[in-house]
Amino acid sequence: MRMISMFLAIFMLFFASQNISAQQNLWQGEGVCSPEIDAEGRVTFRFYAPDVEAVALEGDFLSGSVSMTLGTDGVWSYTTEPLPSEMYYYSFNVKGVGKIHDPQNVYMVRDVSSQMNYFIVGGGCGDLYQAQAVPHGTVSRVWAEIQSGVSRRMVVYTPAGYESSKKKYPVLYLLHGMGGDEEAWLATGRAAEIMDNLIAAGKAKEMIVVMTNGCTRHVAAPGYSEEGMWRPYMSGSMDGSFETMFEGVVEWVDAHYRTKSKADSRAIAGLSMGGFHSMQISKLYPTMFDYVGLFSAAIFRGKEGVAIYEDLEPKLKQQFSEDVELYWIAIGKDDFLYDENVKYRELLDKLELNYVYHESKGGHIWRNWRCYLTEFVQMLFK
Amino acid sequence: MRMISMFLAIFMLFFASQNISAQQNLWQGEGVCSPEIDAEGRVTFRFYAPDVEAVALEGDFLSGSVSMTLGTDGVWSYTTEPLPSEMYYYSFNVKGVGKIHDPQNVYMVRDVSSQMNYFIVGGGCGDLYQAQAVPHGTVSRVWAEIQSGVSRRMVVYTPAGYESSKKKYPVLYLLHGMGGDEEAWLATGRAAEIMDNLIAAGKAKEMIVVMTNGCTRHVAAPGYSEEGMWRPYMSGSMDGSFETMFEGVVEWVDAHYRTKSKADSRAIAGLSMGGFHSMQISKLYPTMFDYVGLFSAAIFRGKEGVAIYEDLEPKLKQQFSEDVELYWIAIGKDDFLYDENVKYRELLDKLELNYVYHESKGGHIWRNWRCYLTEFVQMLFK
Repeated sequence: MRMISMFLAIFMLFFASQNISAQQNLWQGEGVCSPEIDAEGRVTFRFYAPDVEAVALEGDFLSGSVSMTLGTDGVWSYTTEPLPSEMYYYSFNVKGVGKIHDPQNVYMVRDVSSQMNYFIVGGGCGDLYQAQAVPHGTVSRVWAEIQSGVSRRMVVYTPAGYESSKKKYPVLYLLHGMGGDEEAWLATGRAAEIMDNLIAAGKAKEMIVVMTNGCTRHVAAPGYSEEGMWRPYMSGSMDGSFETMFEGVVEWVDAHYRTKSKADSRAIAGLSMGGFHSMQISKLYPTMFDYVGLFSAAIFRGKEGVAIYEDLEPKLKQQFSEDVELYWIAIGKDDFLYDENVKYRELLDKLELNYVYHESKGGHIWRNWRCYLTEFVQMLFK
Repeated sequence: MRMISMFLAIFMLFFASQNISAQQNLWQGEGVCSPEIDAEGRVTFRFYAPDVEAVALEGDFLSGSVSMTLGTDGVWSYTTEPLPSEMYYYSFNVKGVGKIHDPQNVYMVRDVSSQMNYFIVGGGCGDLYQAQAVPHGTVSRVWAEIQSGVSRRMVVYTPAGYESSKKKYPVLYLLHGMGGDEEAWLATGRAAEIMDNLIAAGKAKEMIVVMTNGCTRHVAAPGYSEEGMWRPYMSGSMDGSFETMFEGVVEWVDAHYRTKSKADSRAIAGLSMGGFHSMQISKLYPTMFDYVGLFSAAIFRGKEGVAIYEDLEPKLKQQFSEDVELYWIAIGKDDFLYDENVKYRELLDKLELNYVYHESKGGHIWRNWRCYLTEFVQMLFK
């Protein structure tokens, strides 16, 4: 009788001899490990390319780029100082070629029209951004008919235990920024990992998280609709088209999930354009959400002549005259939208409307938005 | 009042000036379109790299590689002849650097330890592999407790309309090969698109498709469990550990979805190692599945001393003495497992057990497995 080891040997020999039409590249660069993270958070990058003149490392943990060093084995390498726990992006910049991915690292996220390698240093907030030994929720890509004949794709997180319980759950609607789509909070925002980990630690309530697509020129992220495999670009909808759809989104979610369907069990939050949307939607539907989060919000008045953007002050007063449990504004000191947020807070102050303000370091970056999500969800539905 | 156009101008200026810590690369290489597919299926690849000596194109639509040509604009390019409708992989091979991704193409699938660019030429079977203007099912990543204390990740496709109906649905269990995981059939196998399109065309019955992870050394695809961001490698489980879990998988699915929970509404199929698993599991639980599909199956006897692999002939007889509506064996003429499949069919012939045999061109490749899935699901649950 044949032995399993013989089968494996045949299998591996077969694949090792295949061209690209089969499972190619299986052993390309084997032995080169990149990135490698040590116990103190030092990260070593390696890239096998004996014949190039120079390789630089670029990453959001560096100011600028650094030169990598060529070893006698043909491998360029660089080791960082210990990095704070975080999720980081990087690329190699090969002289004469430009930016390329690390061929050893299969972990990539897309940011608008670029795929980027990433890694996570644990030991702090990075632990929240990685799967841990805790119960995991379900992540579903659903198509929701939110208006008659209009179906749009959404990502829905339901917490661990949802399927086997009869309970009803509160809902957080979580909105992406310009250039993003319904996948952004999940991939780069680490929303599922953050929710799993905070819920397991008892720091956040069990909740459903609904991630919509706020670019109404499209019904889905690139590749997931009949629009085909278009190249993603910076696009957004700040003409009222998304905001007025939102009633349909909430109705669909309430009809298809076991939700607590009252305002005190609904939150809406978003980053940048999604913060603008959250501000506008919560004002447009003043009895729909008791929790609002504006993360680095693009606080502008929106397109002229669109009714929902008019009469800001009386509408904000109306919204705050209903129950608002939390109106949370977060931004980084270096954010290009900082001044606009100052002005918006001055307006809220003038109108004597209560909000909570959280100011962080840094700019208009995902690092902040992951932190803001982490902070915000711990305050919800208490 | 500020105009939206002014906001956009500020926004774009801001991002254009950002380093990697923000939304980098947004306009890198803008104007270069790659790949570009014309109406006849010719594909043009472009890569901006004025300073390199040579760039070759590699892809599963080529025999070997071809040289790209440098234009005066610094862009290397190559245009194919019209390609048959299909999903294809490719990479650039830069002299002195090696294989790199196409920085203009965000569409990638992972094959074991490599990320690969892909594109789809429509007009034939490629249309099945892309989202079309049809109702789309839901795709969920779930964690299933399939044994006491053992949770494993699965991908579950529910057809369009599942959420708003009260109907019960038949279930196809769809298993990956060695080196794959629960994501493989979805990403490279295009299972969700195939199901959406065939169901919408009335060619396949509405069904739930459950994609398990058949490598019992892991509970989830890389990055989705507490094992962290390990580098994927060729691994598999052909020691009986996966097969004996399967009762728990089916029980969990029947408990958590509206399934038709009888054998005449259950199918199991898989590619390569998944074909081995489908063969073994359907024999181990002879009253569980009336439909079995072995796609390029790794028909080996399995590890010695494992009881479920022993007594093959009487167990096959037992299985076929129950209702077997369809036992479908498909393989390509050039598959390295072809001879093993001949031997297996000779055994079935000797035992006078009825199966249907489908032979295609080509080898042990995803192109065949997508076709086999397309053929197989049209025969199910009729």
